[in-house]
Amino acid sequence: MDELLGGLKRTHMCGQLRLSDVDTSAVVMGWVQRRRDLGGVIFIDLRDRTGIVQVVFNEIFDADAFDKAQALRNEYVIAVVGDVVRRSEDTVNPKINTGEIEIRARQLKVLGRSETPPFPVEDDINVSEILRLKYRYLDLRRPDMQRNLMLRHKVSKITRDFLSDEGFIEVETPMLTKSTPEGARDYLVPSRLHPGSFYALPQSPQLFKQLLMISGFDKYFQIARCFRDEDLRADRQPEFTQIDLEMSFVDVEDVIALNEQLIARIFKDAIGMDISLPLKRLTYKEAMERYGSDKPDTRFGLELKDISDIVRSSQFKVFADAVAHGGSVRGINVIDGADKFARRELDALVDFVKTFGAKGLAWITITADELKSPITKFLSQDEIDGILGRMDAKAGDLLLFVADKDEVVFDSLGQLRLELGKRLNLIDDSRYDLLWVTEFPLLEYSEEEKRYVAKHHPFTSPMDEDISLLNSEPWKARAKAYDMVLNGNEIGGGSIRIHSTELQQKMFEVLGFSKEDAWERFGFLLKAFEYGAPPHGGMAYGLDRLVMLLAGLDTIRDVIAFPKVQNASCPLTEAPTPVDEKQLRELHIRVRQQQ
Amino acid sequence: MDELLGGLKRTHMCGQLRLSDVDTSAVVMGWVQRRRDLGGVIFIDLRDRTGIVQVVFNEIFDADAFDKAQALRNEYVIAVVGDVVRRSEDTVNPKINTGEIEIRARQLKVLGRSETPPFPVEDDINVSEILRLKYRYLDLRRPDMQRNLMLRHKVSKITRDFLSDEGFIEVETPMLTKSTPEGARDYLVPSRLHPGSFYALPQSPQLFKQLLMISGFDKYFQIARCFRDEDLRADRQPEFTQIDLEMSFVDVEDVIALNEQLIARIFKDAIGMDISLPLKRLTYKEAMERYGSDKPDTRFGLELKDISDIVRSSQFKVFADAVAHGGSVRGINVIDGADKFARRELDALVDFVKTFGAKGLAWITITADELKSPITKFLSQDEIDGILGRMDAKAGDLLLFVADKDEVVFDSLGQLRLELGKRLNLIDDSRYDLLWVTEFPLLEYSEEEKRYVAKHHPFTSPMDEDISLLNSEPWKARAKAYDMVLNGNEIGGGSIRIHSTELQQKMFEVLGFSKEDAWERFGFLLKAFEYGAPPHGGMAYGLDRLVMLLAGLDTIRDVIAFPKVQNASCPLTEAPTPVDEKQLRELHIRVRQQQ
Repeated sequence: MDELLGGLKRTHMCGQLRLSDVDTSAVVMGWVQRRRDLGGVIFIDLRDRTGIVQVVFNEIFDADAFDKAQALRNEYVIAVVGDVVRRSEDTVNPKINTGEIEIRARQLKVLGRSETPPFPVEDDINVSEILRLKYRYLDLRRPDMQRNLMLRHKVSKITRDFLSDEGFIEVETPMLTKSTPEGARDYLVPSRLHPGSFYALPQSPQLFKQLLMISGFDKYFQIARCFRDEDLRADRQPEFTQIDLEMSFVDVEDVIALNEQLIARIFKDAIGMDISLPLKRLTYKEAMERYGSDKPDTRFGLELKDISDIVRSSQFKVFADAVAHGGSVRGINVIDGADKFARRELDALVDFVKTFGAKGLAWITITADELKSPITKFLSQDEIDGILGRMDAKAGDLLLFVADKDEVVFDSLGQLRLELGKRLNLIDDSRYDLLWVTEFPLLEYSEEEKRYVAKHHPFTSPMDEDISLLNSEPWKARAKAYDMVLNGNEIGGGSIRIHSTELQQKMFEVLGFSKEDAWERFGFLLKAFEYGAPPHGGMAYGLDRLVMLLAGLDTIRDVIAFPKVQNASCPLTEAPTPVDEKQLRELHIRVRQQQ
Repeated sequence: MDELLGGLKRTHMCGQLRLSDVDTSAVVMGWVQRRRDLGGVIFIDLRDRTGIVQVVFNEIFDADAFDKAQALRNEYVIAVVGDVVRRSEDTVNPKINTGEIEIRARQLKVLGRSETPPFPVEDDINVSEILRLKYRYLDLRRPDMQRNLMLRHKVSKITRDFLSDEGFIEVETPMLTKSTPEGARDYLVPSRLHPGSFYALPQSPQLFKQLLMISGFDKYFQIARCFRDEDLRADRQPEFTQIDLEMSFVDVEDVIALNEQLIARIFKDAIGMDISLPLKRLTYKEAMERYGSDKPDTRFGLELKDISDIVRSSQFKVFADAVAHGGSVRGINVIDGADKFARRELDALVDFVKTFGAKGLAWITITADELKSPITKFLSQDEIDGILGRMDAKAGDLLLFVADKDEVVFDSLGQLRLELGKRLNLIDDSRYDLLWVTEFPLLEYSEEEKRYVAKHHPFTSPMDEDISLLNSEPWKARAKAYDMVLNGNEIGGGSIRIHSTELQQKMFEVLGFSKEDAWERFGFLLKAFEYGAPPHGGMAYGLDRLVMLLAGLDTIRDVIAFPKVQNASCPLTEAPTPVDEKQLRELHIRVRQQQ
């Protein structure tokens, strides 16, 4: 049966051979990374998952193998039988793990030939991503990509081990489920047996994991594929993976404690980093006020300061009006920034904040003996003194202010803060700043839908002390919701859930659902609450993003084996594709004619 | 923040309290299994995932708790604070693990109320499956169902641990992929960004795992959701889960050896059973000839015997003609069966084999001094002696024969054998018979498509010595394919794959694909073979069925948290459902009007 491998059985992986293997015979198999023909000697760098080993062909060792080796080209797949020998001092290669030895080939079998690859199989190639994805099987041979996917495997394994040890049970929830659009768009799957009906692919296992808590499973987890048919941004994919977990008989502190243990374990075992617990915490309010973001990057300063009280009655109408209309005036002190921005560069910062809705950006440059600013002439000395005090300003600093609705102030200054952090090189890339943001608002107003929508999702419980607000000022209610933030990225989020029919119905009412509509879409959950639901809550992490950050990468596409590109297509398989009319007929659908 | 749980923190799980916990204070939380009110004393059986504990409420212990306990009903969710005490001798309940202790309640908090459930939450209920599935969250509270899903978790965990330790890497492959229908029907997902185009949900990760081998990952696995839009049989689901693995630089024996270790580990760690290795093996030919099945249940005898050579020239035309037309005559000896089947029952066996296409069933009953049979009068004494010898027949035995094309003979006698095994109680239910069936035919003729189709799939490699048959008599070629069979069920299967463009194209040619068609559908794989593909092969197990068999169950629905019913709908969520016209419009499809 072993014609296939020429009767050979692999004895070693390429990258694992060491001095201690010298004088043994080895059978290695892999890809030709490089071939150098020095007349009477041919050197092959042979590559497998573990690394590279040098193989030497010489007529003296074996004439037949030497002859065959002349035909080898990059990416040929071969099996080599040979002797492991010590390299001479001057040929030792300290750059590779196997650099002290080489294999003298006694036998060579070609297992697979290769055309010239469209790009070299090595790290740091300068190739368009589309070409890499079209030939993904070549791209994935690169050591960097192999490491990325192995890290992903490791993170999943660590997570499963930890949660299993903690008594969590992994349960698989359905992929073909019910469409309950709320938030993102569903991917739909036409039903063959029920003409005109459709399944939806899950946006998350949320409803099912809650049902599992009502089923008494107590602690559930799943590393689950989820689907959202949204327009792709840089770090979004149509399908993505969540580490999803849920616990019964818990409140916020229990979920937070468990998840701190989990994330610390992942950091320790995946990349060898110690995380000190407990993690920092910021309330949503504090995060917005200090960083202008609910996922603050706390690796650098440039914190926001509120000067609204100081300028409330100012002659500078821009400031005074913002406060009068319920907004605020806030600023950032760019310490020692006074001489880092020419007038033209300050104008560029003004344009920058405008892209986030701000109407302008006021600046004050502080030199040793004067303030330069287009706005100081409108401010009283008291106001100026107040501002400088509030901003901890000193000579050499640059102050930047936005006056507007809070929303706009936070967003534009938060973005400006990040931009300045990068531009001024204030971010320590080796640092991993993990923290919780808590006490999120329960609701947020959707301009698009002209109604309040759930900030997290409609199943999130209000904070106990804010439940009564649902009847009066629901927009003021805070939720038992918490996000885990890493270096300015939300890597996970969760909440304690509502577990009573009454409160859940109240929540749907606040969201503007009629009772009928709520029951039609989520009746199975509301009904389940009537048969003994335990208090429960949980968490979900974006695995793709987590692994990306652990690997120090910029895009989740580099930690996904076969990702889609921006337009949700796959350059390798060319999916999606037109299908046979027969298939559509069986599914009781037809394609609409384009207008 | 802990208003939710009344300031309480669970200290123990219900089912884990023991004598050693006596005199400690405990906080337990769970569901009311049963409430007995004996006037001044109320007993509650409190249930969580780990089992049941008895809680006693008495005015003497705490009046307030006692008062509240009067309102408790089945399936209420409660938290109890109390003292663990030893039960008196006469009240010890040896049937439950906690039967030597009880909890005297000092405090009671109701966390969730319950309506009267539509069926009791206990094992061995007599309720329609549709009702169980509609209220799946109640059904899943039953100890049997909890055990089933915990076993499933355990099997997945054992598998991941074993394979990870063996150097396999779990890689997630896409769910939104390309439709390449060959075999089963695809589930399709309309694309919003590509009008008229569709993704398909994967029937298996086959092509992607082969691409991962070409990518140099060497050893891959995935516990992967797969989808087939087929009409549901008893043990099929629209979505199901595979343990999927693939290895590079291997031949048949390597894959078999690894998988024997894996399955032995699963049996040992999941249900404590030792499997002796290596497993038995049967070639496909031998399995068919001895058991009339390629997934034989070898827990009992009743093997088939071929008597074609004996009756080839018989006067009994039914036998002689079958042989003359290239078929065969085969029989089963039902040992000591002569007096177990009345004439009417024998007629029923004739009807039984007819449902599998046999034209009849010939029988010979052997008593102490004569043969009874409708056919012996057509047979010569030599033929009769030959048959009795071949069948190892003795007085008291019953012989049963079918004469037809091999296909019909094997199928009808194979099914008859299983039927007789059950009816005569020959099957030892406590036994787990695991074996390999090897050397499957590469092709089988599809009456429906009027062409040869792949017996496993089109990527399966022929056996080395049969490759040349592809050009002459491809239907005779055997494949490097192997199935793992457990008690008559195929629990897994795999093969060594083709890894060259030429052989793969040849295979598509044999299957009747034009070169264009093959490239349009599988071009990305054929192309990948051109850039250095290693020899590779693998295996896939049906996880649902494996867990079902390990748990000793009859249906995979009992090992799936939220399964679909026969018509592929979900009684709980009511999926699939009609969707908004707006959603369809965005997807560029419309529903066809019904005729």
